[in-house]
This record gives sequence, C-alpha cells and structure tokens, in this order.
Amino acid sequence: MSKIHATVWGENVHERKVEFIRKIYPAGIHGCIAAGLEEASDLSAASVTLEQPEHGLTEEVLAGTDVLLWWGHCAHGDVQDAIVERVIKRVNEGMGLIVLHSGHYSKVFKRLLGTTCSLTWREAGEKERLWVCNPSHPIAAGLGPYFEIAQEEMYGEPFGIPAPDEQIFISWFEGGEVFRSGATWKRGAGKIFYFRPGHESYPTYYDSNVKLVLKNAVRWAAPEGPRWIDSAPNIPVDKAPEKIELKGEVLHKPGESGFK
Amino acid sequence: MSKIHATVWGENVHERKVEFIRKIYPAGIHGCIAAGLEEASDLSAASVTLEQPEHGLTEEVLAGTDVLLWWGHCAHGDVQDAIVERVIKRVNEGMGLIVLHSGHYSKVFKRLLGTTCSLTWREAGEKERLWVCNPSHPIAAGLGPYFEIAQEEMYGEPFGIPAPDEQIFISWFEGGEVFRSGATWKRGAGKIFYFRPGHESYPTYYDSNVKLVLKNAVRWAAPEGPRWIDSAPNIPVDKAPEKIELKGEVLHKPGESGFK
Amino acid sequence: MSKIHATVWGENVHERKVEFIRKIYPAGIHGCIAAGLEEASDLSAASVTLEQPEHGLTEEVLAGTDVLLWWGHCAHGDVQDAIVERVIKRVNEGMGLIVLHSGHYSKVFKRLLGTTCSLTWREAGEKERLWVCNPSHPIAAGLGPYFEIAQEEMYGEPFGIPAPDEQIFISWFEGGEVFRSGATWKRGAGKIFYFRPGHESYPTYYDSNVKLVLKNAVRWAAPEGPRWIDSAPNIPVDKAPEKIELKGEVLHKPGESGFK
Amino acid sequence: MSKIHATVWGENVHERKVEFIRKIYPAGIHGCIAAGLEEASDLSAASVTLEQPEHGLTEEVLAGTDVLLWWGHCAHGDVQDAIVERVIKRVNEGMGLIVLHSGHYSKVFKRLLGTTCSLTWREAGEKERLWVCNPSHPIAAGLGPYFEIAQEEMYGEPFGIPAPDEQIFISWFEGGEVFRSGATWKRGAGKIFYFRPGHESYPTYYDSNVKLVLKNAVRWAAPEGPRWIDSAPNIPVDKAPEKIELKGEVLHKPGESGFK
Repeated sequence: MSKIHATVWGENVHERKVEFIRKIYPAGIHGCIAAGLEEASDLSAASVTLEQPEHGLTEEVLAGTDVLLWWGHCAHGDVQDAIVERVIKRVNEGMGLIVLHSGHYSKVFKRLLGTTCSLTWREAGEKERLWVCNPSHPIAAGLGPYFEIAQEEMYGEPFGIPAPDEQIFISWFEGGEVFRSGATWKRGAGKIFYFRPGHESYPTYYDSNVKLVLKNAVRWAAPEGPRWIDSAPNIPVDKAPEKIELKGEVLHKPGESGFK
Repeated sequence: MSKIHATVWGENVHERKVEFIRKIYPAGIHGCIAAGLEEASDLSAASVTLEQPEHGLTEEVLAGTDVLLWWGHCAHGDVQDAIVERVIKRVNEGMGLIVLHSGHYSKVFKRLLGTTCSLTWREAGEKERLWVCNPSHPIAAGLGPYFEIAQEEMYGEPFGIPAPDEQIFISWFEGGEVFRSGATWKRGAGKIFYFRPGHESYPTYYDSNVKLVLKNAVRWAAPEGPRWIDSAPNIPVDKAPEKIELKGEVLHKPGESGFK
Repeated sequence: MSKIHATVWGENVHERKVEFIRKIYPAGIHGCIAAGLEEASDLSAASVTLEQPEHGLTEEVLAGTDVLLWWGHCAHGDVQDAIVERVIKRVNEGMGLIVLHSGHYSKVFKRLLGTTCSLTWREAGEKERLWVCNPSHPIAAGLGPYFEIAQEEMYGEPFGIPAPDEQIFISWFEGGEVFRSGATWKRGAGKIFYFRPGHESYPTYYDSNVKLVLKNAVRWAAPEGPRWIDSAPNIPVDKAPEKIELKGEVLHKPGESGFK
Repeated sequence: MSKIHATVWGENVHERKVEFIRKIYPAGIHGCIAAGLEEASDLSAASVTLEQPEHGLTEEVLAGTDVLLWWGHCAHGDVQDAIVERVIKRVNEGMGLIVLHSGHYSKVFKRLLGTTCSLTWREAGEKERLWVCNPSHPIAAGLGPYFEIAQEEMYGEPFGIPAPDEQIFISWFEGGEVFRSGATWKRGAGKIFYFRPGHESYPTYYDSNVKLVLKNAVRWAAPEGPRWIDSAPNIPVDKAPEKIELKGEVLHKPGESGFK
C-alpha cells in the first residue's frame, strides 16, 4: 500500500527570532510535526515554510499532497492571496487540511469556514485537559477518555466557527474556560480538521497524545473518493437528457462559457 | 412594530446594456425585487447598485440593513474586495443574506461558503418546477406542494456547496436535470438563503410565488438575536474565572493584543 | 399578540418521595419551572405530571401546546409508549421541545435523536460554569460570557448525541469535566433544545440565569412555520405534474394507500 | 486484508406471495442484493429474512456484521421491537446501515432518524434519473454525472427526514417529481445511507449502476473507528480529574448506578 503524503506548512518565524522558542523547536515547529508523522510507517511527511518561493506550496507540491497541515501565527498577513486560493482549490478537490492552534486566524481557515474564527485567549502556561467527545471516531483511536497537556495557552469560547460536522475534542482549562478543541468540516471533496493545542512557547508537538492525534487525523483526512476537478459546464440544448427546444431570447451565444 | 429593512443589491449591467432585458426590467432587476418586497407592510426595501460609490454598500447602509439581497452575474469580478469583506463581517454580526440565482458565483457567496459554488447550466427557456422539501419552513409559508416557472435558465447538479442546514426547495427541469434551488446556512450570527430562480432573460421576479418566497425569506433571515461584534479578547491571568498563576515563559507582553 | 403556550411535564416522583427535595421544590420541579416562565408577559405555562391520566399529555393538551418542557429521571420506563409516540408526532408537526437535565435518558429524547444519549456523571455538589458558545443566539440573549451554578451534578463527555445543529452552551466542572450543556436539533417542523442543569438535589430552577435561558428557549422553540400534518399521499398516474402513462405491472390497486 | 461482512435483511413477503415478483426475484430481493455484493472480492454478503427466528438478526449475527442492508415494505409492523432495539444499538456501536427504498418506513429507520420519513409516491413504471450531487463522494465512485432506471416507482418530496449530513443523489422523475434519493447520517459510531431505488415490481437490483452504488456504500459504511460500547459510568468523587470534596445532600448512594 502506498503511503499517505502529508505536507506540513510552517510559518517559521518565532522559531528563528525568539531564543526560548528556538530551543524548544530547533528544527522548527513544522520539522517537529513532520518528524512525528514520519514515525508511522503508512505516512510520509515533508515540511515547507513561508519564506520559500510560493511559500513552498507550488502547484506540484499541492498536487502531490494528500493532507496539508498548517501552523501559522504572527505572519498570517504575509501569505499571498494567490497561494491561499490555490490551497482552497486543492481542498475543494479533495486534499485534506489540518489546521493547528493559531492557524485558526490563517487566511486559509477563515476563507474555508466563512466566519470570524475568533476566540478568547490567555498565555499562562496553564493545564489543558482534552476530553474525547466521540470515542469511536478514527481521530480519537488509541486515546483514553481524556488526555492532559501540562502547560498550554488557553483558548476559550465563543469560538467563531460554523457548527462542526463532528465534535471530536473539548478542552477544560485550569483557569476556568472551555473550548471546542477538535472539530471537523467538509468543503467540496476535502476534509478539514481543526486541532487546538500547539502554542509555540511549549513543547506540545513532542507530546505522545498530540502526535497520535495528528497521525490519526492525517489518515482520516486523506482523500477517499475520486478527485473532483471543478467546472461549470454549459449543457447545450441538444445535449439535455430530455428532448427540449429553445424557447425565447437568450443572453449567451452557443458554446459560450458562463461568467465567473 | 418596526419594519424589517431590506437592501437589494443589483449589478445593473444587463438591464442597461441589453435591449430585451431592459424591456423586461425597466427599473432594473433590483428595482423589481425591491418593489415586490415593498408590497408587504412589515418590510421596507431600498436598492443599491454596483456603479454607486462603495457599490452602494457603505458602512452606514450596511449597519441599517437587516437583510441584504444580492443579484449579480457578469461583473462579479468588479466588486471590490474591501466591500466584500465588509459584507462578510456584517453577515457574521447578524445581517441576513439572500443570494439570488447567478449570485452563486459572487465573491460574497463563495467567501462565506468556502466552496466552488459551481453547477451546470443551460439557457433554453425551459420549464422549472420547484418542489417544497419542508412545508413547515417559514420560507415556504403559503406555497403549495410545488410551483412552476414557465421559462427559466437551467441550473443542474452537482452544485458545489457545503451540506445545507436546511433544504427548502429542489427544482425539476424540463430538460431532465435537478437542482438544490433553496437552501440555508448560518455564518456567525447571520442567516443565509440561496434561491435559484431569476435569470435576467425572463420576467421571473414578477412571478407571485417568487415574490412570496422572497418576502418570507426576508422575514426568516432578519436577525433574531443580539448583534455580536466580534473580538478576540485577551483574558489576563488575574481575570481568569479560576485563580491561576503564570507558569513558564510567555511570548506576549501583558495587555498586548494577539496576532490577526 | 397572543402568548406562547408552554406545557411543563414533570415526573413528580423525587419531589414527593424524598424529604430534602420536597423542601427545595414544594410545588414540584415542574411547578417551579412553570412559575419561572409565567414571569414573562408573553409566555403562559401550565404543568402536567406522570401520574395524571395519559400522563397529562392528552391530544387536546398537546394540540394546544406550542412548546413542551420535559423533566424526568427515575421513572422514564413508566412513560407509556403510546404517549411517547404522540409527543414525537407533535414535535414533527412543529411543537417545540425542551429537554431538561436527566431527561437526556427519556424515551422521548432518545426516540427523537436515535442515539444512546449517555454520558458520565457525578453527584458532588460541585461548581458548574456554563460558557456561551454563540452570544448572538436568541437562547443566550441577556447572558454574559458565562454564568455559574454553585452546586450541581456533573455530566461529562462523551455525550451520546448526533452532531447538534447549534452549540449554545458548554459546561466547565470543578471536578475537571466538560459537557455540551446546551444544543439544538430539528425533527420535522419541531425545534429541540437540550439544557443540562437541573439536578433535583439543588435549587437550580430558581436561578435567574437558568430562568432566563428557559424563557429565551421557549420563545426560540415556538413554531414559526405552518403546522405540517404528515401524510404519504399516493399521486395517481393521471395527477402527475407531467403527462405519463402506466407502464408494466403494479402491486398497488388504484386508490390503495401504501404500507406503513 | 479481511473482507467487509455485509448482512442483507429481506422481508421476503412479496417474493413469495406475488407471482410476477417471484419471477423477477426467484432468490428473493435479499438474495439478489447479496449476490451483487459478492461480485466484489473485498466484500462478503449473507442474507437473512423476517420469518427466521429473531428475524435472522441474532446477537451473534449482528456482532459479526460490519454493514446491514435493510429491505422491507408490507410487513414493517411484524418486526419485533426487541430486534429493532438490538439493531439500533449495533448501529450506535458502529455497524453501518443501508436502508433501501420502502425501508424508509421501517421501524429501524424511523427510530434512528426521529422523523416521519414520509413521502409521496406513484407506481407507474416511469423513468427515474439519479443525479450525483457530490462526484467526489466514495459512494458515487465510478458513476457518471447521472444514471437512469427505465422503470421505477416514484417517490416525491417532501421527504420527512432530518437534514442529511451529505446529499449524494437527487432523482428526477418522468412524471415531474424530485426526491433526495441518496443521503447519509451518523448515529453514534454508525454510518447510515438511505438509497431510494428498488421497488419490488421492477428488476432494479440487477442494474449495474445500482449494484455499483451498493458496493461503494458498503465500503463507505464499514466501521472506521473503535467500537464504542456505550455506558453511563458514575465517576466517584475521589476519581474526579481535579480534587474536589462532596458538598450538600445527594440522592444516589456511592457506587449506585444511575436511572435509565
């Protein structure tokens, strides 16, 4: 069986600019995430970053990606709109997308969900406990009823998202908040999973439960149907399934493509 | 009781440039739609168009709009991105949105749904029969099991949309296709209704059933909860609901706002 | 404007049999809930109980009920199946339904949702904090970002429900759990709201925030469309919208009703 | 790779009692469906029927079933409630369920969806054309934009179902109606697919497209996560994730199980 191809997109700014973060993630957050996925024999993972040409997300890279993981924070605005549209298109064609932590405010996520994606937050190194809402979901395979992360940033409700297709995790925070920490949506042929943990100040992506969730999520998000290359075809009158004849005036000439 | 304020946005291009369309809609498609809504004593309707400053959608106009109706076709690309974002924001705050016919390809609709919004089409003046999928839905109030439009453009499946919250209408076309002609979604606090009929070549917006649906839809889409002005507030450590103390290093200085 | 008619169904067992609960709710839990609703000038509320003929839910009572509230716990099994089916039918016709606390295991709720409706629980008088997930939802109108109940039973995830249409509240518990405490679904023409708080050992239904939520919820759940009396009509060949002729053998004789 | 185990449940009444139907399906409708699935090397299929002890759906049979297909029509009322509950439980544990044609009125389907599941109908041997709403869905793999069945019973909207998670097919009927012919839902860990065609008067289950859809659907509905054996565990005070102490009076004694 061929491997599932994951691409981890990393902003790679904090890790270069902030000393204490570089010590946590010497290979970058993206590098740590990709290494975690590579532990699984059925997955392969490459990482690309913001500063690369086309942010590392060329047509070729995306065409060969089954599942894209996205970590960004302070440089959302630097991501070119053309690349964002390219990612959106590939998700609609069937590429899976896993949006991580502060990626909730990425252009890609906001564009796909259509909402504000806002939340409340606090950086206090407090305890987070993630509860499994659906123990039978493949993304939760191998987990117990909950798992804890000793130190994390808090994200709290209200989370500005459309109602998820499936609620996988909800977090309990030491400081008193709750958050919908794992949720799924579909856009076109593409599956989307948002996963909350992963603040750059803490070694979250080394956590074994977090790594397990990401492996599960990549398997879940991999395309399971045919790739649907979108189009908006005109069906000429003489190609209608039922025999009809043209009636009245028309705006479009025969064979003309529609407005987009 | 105060009236519900509807604003009808019209592209107003075909009506000015194409003789046979101008004859159908001498006051513009937008004008015809607004006049239809004004028949109801609980609704008020104004219309604005693409060529106006800020496309007629100033902050003031949007702030005073309960429900926005959108008709566009050949000039989707001419709508400025800043205005699109303004509309998206107002929908998320609670303004209702009714997207009409070829508006399926408008920036606003694609941005809110996150999908391709594509479909198949044919301009043959064929018969369309719209079936009511949920006779108890307020948008269908007063209709029979179905209604017909003698001449319409055909739109066919697959329609590139996320699964609707509610399916209100499905169309049967003389030429053999079907289409999800009435469907709803929510984005933030805003309700969205897509309604298929309304090709510029036919007098669809004079049809009594179409007018009834639009009146019903404006009432349904009007805000029913408090307006939610979005933010992403930082909750300082000493304002946490439960007493906690800061642990470990932090990236953000106290009082700093987050990255967007 | 005529009032919305709410009927509060109470099991009325703990209140009669357990001394310390009787002291909390001398008029019954149902009586306390109904009194809370009656505070609002646009609502009227009556209460009925298990021990009444037909459990107080005659055809007449249900026909005149806009929204039914349901509180049960130790006697779910004593509710007759015929009455359950009657309630289900009325919900599908458009009657709103608000299921309270331990009503998660009522026949009515399980029958409408189709899932186990199970959860984890602990009776320790611990603090519950309910966070508002959607501040713009009418059920949350007038609330702050969260409200607290000093002593409540804990309900924890996983909650065995289908993905809600809307998530209104999520609870944080002192003992470390979380729960989807307010959620909505639709069945037929009827709106359903589940609201978690309300253990019989505590004076929860006297809480001003809880009373506000119930008032809001009754308004939200009231029917907004025409009542849909269900049927499965045969459409005879000569009544088809398009002219067709009978082809081949048939099982059903003309005019026969279908199997149910 | 081990095969996916499908069990086809057939009512087996029309095939025994009606001469012209017996000629179409000499091995029963269930036998024809099972034979179609067996064409695929990754699927195994057995069939069971109403008249067998426990309707052929013993605990053992269901425990070994990955996906259950259900065809019933005139004898829905003869299915014992205890067996219905057993099937519901297994679906919630993760068994896939494919409900066929007149199975829309089966106890199993109505119990899982919570709605009336009613529709309009006509037995005229008319043409049905099924359009694919989502070409990228695995259930539609290998199909063109649509497929036709020369003679079928008509089912028309309104179809009394909750909003589907995914709309796979919509039918166009020669007589002028439309219908949501393929749709999915989830209940607990189990996936549900409703597929419309299959009236007993016509040889629908020999159709190559219908057979392809059923093979695809069995693969799609097979469990993909861990089996979730439901429970409602009490979490004692001293087992709470966070240290708490009992406050106030309690109804349940330590170790007591809750009410169901």
